[in-house]
Amino acid sequence: MTDFNETRSLFHLPDGIVYLDGNSLGPLPITAVDKVRQTMLDEWGDMLIGAWNQADWVNLPSRIGDRIGRLIGARPGTVVMGDTLTIKVYQALSSALAINRERRVVLSDNGNFPSDLYAAGQLLRSLDRGHELRLCDPEAVADNLDDDVAVLLLTEVDYRTGRLHDMQALTGMAHARGILTVWDLAHSAGALPVDVDGAGADFAVGCTYKYLNSGPGGPAFIYVAPGLVDRVEPALAGWLGHEDPFAFDLDYRPGAGIERMRVGTPPVLQLAALEASLDIWDRVDIEDVRAKSIELTDLFIEGVEAECPGLELASPRDGRRRGSQVSFRFSHGYAAMQALIDNGVIGDFRAPDIMRFGFTPLYINAADVRRAVSIISRVMKNRLWNNDKYRRRTQVT
Amino acid sequence: MTDFNETRSLFHLPDGIVYLDGNSLGPLPITAVDKVRQTMLDEWGDMLIGAWNQADWVNLPSRIGDRIGRLIGARPGTVVMGDTLTIKVYQALSSALAINRERRVVLSDNGNFPSDLYAAGQLLRSLDRGHELRLCDPEAVADNLDDDVAVLLLTEVDYRTGRLHDMQALTGMAHARGILTVWDLAHSAGALPVDVDGAGADFAVGCTYKYLNSGPGGPAFIYVAPGLVDRVEPALAGWLGHEDPFAFDLDYRPGAGIERMRVGTPPVLQLAALEASLDIWDRVDIEDVRAKSIELTDLFIEGVEAECPGLELASPRDGRRRGSQVSFRFSHGYAAMQALIDNGVIGDFRAPDIMRFGFTPLYINAADVRRAVSIISRVMKNRLWNNDKYRRRTQVT
Repeated sequence: MTDFNETRSLFHLPDGIVYLDGNSLGPLPITAVDKVRQTMLDEWGDMLIGAWNQADWVNLPSRIGDRIGRLIGARPGTVVMGDTLTIKVYQALSSALAINRERRVVLSDNGNFPSDLYAAGQLLRSLDRGHELRLCDPEAVADNLDDDVAVLLLTEVDYRTGRLHDMQALTGMAHARGILTVWDLAHSAGALPVDVDGAGADFAVGCTYKYLNSGPGGPAFIYVAPGLVDRVEPALAGWLGHEDPFAFDLDYRPGAGIERMRVGTPPVLQLAALEASLDIWDRVDIEDVRAKSIELTDLFIEGVEAECPGLELASPRDGRRRGSQVSFRFSHGYAAMQALIDNGVIGDFRAPDIMRFGFTPLYINAADVRRAVSIISRVMKNRLWNNDKYRRRTQVT
Repeated sequence: MTDFNETRSLFHLPDGIVYLDGNSLGPLPITAVDKVRQTMLDEWGDMLIGAWNQADWVNLPSRIGDRIGRLIGARPGTVVMGDTLTIKVYQALSSALAINRERRVVLSDNGNFPSDLYAAGQLLRSLDRGHELRLCDPEAVADNLDDDVAVLLLTEVDYRTGRLHDMQALTGMAHARGILTVWDLAHSAGALPVDVDGAGADFAVGCTYKYLNSGPGGPAFIYVAPGLVDRVEPALAGWLGHEDPFAFDLDYRPGAGIERMRVGTPPVLQLAALEASLDIWDRVDIEDVRAKSIELTDLFIEGVEAECPGLELASPRDGRRRGSQVSFRFSHGYAAMQALIDNGVIGDFRAPDIMRFGFTPLYINAADVRRAVSIISRVMKNRLWNNDKYRRRTQVT
């Protein structure tokens, strides 16, 4: 059984606030500071270039990939770290299109994170071969899995509402129609149990700075199904994904398995911070996280709905159908969120009217939820958001 | 006049070695440790998500881009940080191809860094429209600038030999034939004066972990000519390159100017380390670096050639025609480099027979060069490389 009092003690949590934005940027694991310092002084500083071997930097992306793999149901040797999530989306999608090259449609939903859609749209535009990015409502994905679809590109958990797709069912339906799947796990990894292997996902990608607490700009991960990876020749390829990077051959030959999805030099300092976070994750059972997350989010919904009739629940009411966040619609949501932040509840705002709150059992407990509800209630009842200083729209989260 | 004794004191340099591999991984700027620690504790730790505004993380890629710009002759607002060099090569090349879309050839030379060629080759393959990656000898580039060439993709300084292309002349010849140029400045930025604006380069990219000392996996930079950037719609696009990232529109609209080349969340910790290094660069005149670099490399060549007749100079003898490195060919180069490292001279080996030594006046002086020559002389005269322990080929640099 995971000891959430212990995990909470391992994060740097500023006094006086309830941090419900770990779904945007997870807080600092206390040991990360020394871990990065040690990497800088003992490895970069003292070993210099030799650290690529002596500190095994060269294998860091796969070693850490395996640790992430445990959290998303991926076998060892099927996940590798690097770059940013959008780049990994691009790499996965372009690789999938190269395999399913007779078809011309990429299907996604209009609840997908816009960056994924920008990456997809600009990729298809650059191919200049008549591809189409087709968007449907999230509820209509199954109905749109036609025979002209090459790739289904979905984010499992909707970044605004927290609505959860059924990865296993949709992947099965996609495969039945010859469609490859790319799953974005941005709001899934570390938030709930994921089983990419069991679901039969072809590609999966995700970031680590949200629920995995790797810090701002922490690297992304990519998974490719073991049965597929040897057929993948990434469109976006680099030397560290080459079969023999240090032969410096002029011709590209993809590396063994998932290694081929590596591109350039890995961000060693950011990976060190991630390692400190994964040391905490080693003590955690993701099933416990899920149970606690549903408990906390249920408690939050119950409290807010009882206290704040002006806020309309935007997330699925059934905890099994949402990720680890709760969102409410409110027409003055931007100002209201600014007022909440001023009063010690940190959530974020997503246009046009979504107030979003993330729940992360590793460091958020029921007392935090009750305190947040009480503050939200006070802000809403006293219309504290109705203040000129909250009108300007500058929040960046 | 740059005070190189002062700059040398600002780096963490382990005792007992001469580090001639700063062209692969620059050493640790001493203040980087505290800078990163402060970013982790005071910004990530205390400000949490608010740091994107309060610590201005959101503009870090452009602010630092301007500081890099000063070193490569780019005007403010034309350089932005992010990702890795190979990804920036891909982004620049794919953007250039979208502009010059009637032509089907990318011209490069066979001395280019293989990762650039892998990125280019796999990009062209994914386009599947009959593009060709044409390679010629470095000396024959001008003769191959034909009317079917869409993009000239070159690395200014050859990673093996240090041979320097004439960026201004080749760019002018390319433009005269309607060819766009992408310049890789991996071994140029911080090594010698670069004038992308004066040369009329269309795109330029580079990394920061070599001469710019940002640490392992530090972010890359990209420059787009101000007269061109508004026509660029990057194939590899993400939300932070959108005109209004926080509108979360479903449609991509490129951001203003160079901002459009941003993709995902910037690596804030790596950027903090880079900032510490750029604080040193603020004290430095790149013309002084160049003069000192030529002095040091001339001294090195003279010494090695006098002492080690078995080593054949692979770099241009004329200092004006080489970057800030000196390479020698030696059939037992791998073993010899291992023996040198064991004896305190850190350089690196590049297949098949190149022993490579980088010279970085910020922390290498004439006494270091003389000491290195003396050690190399001893290793070569006593054939210290002729030892079984140096036979295995495992170096990763």
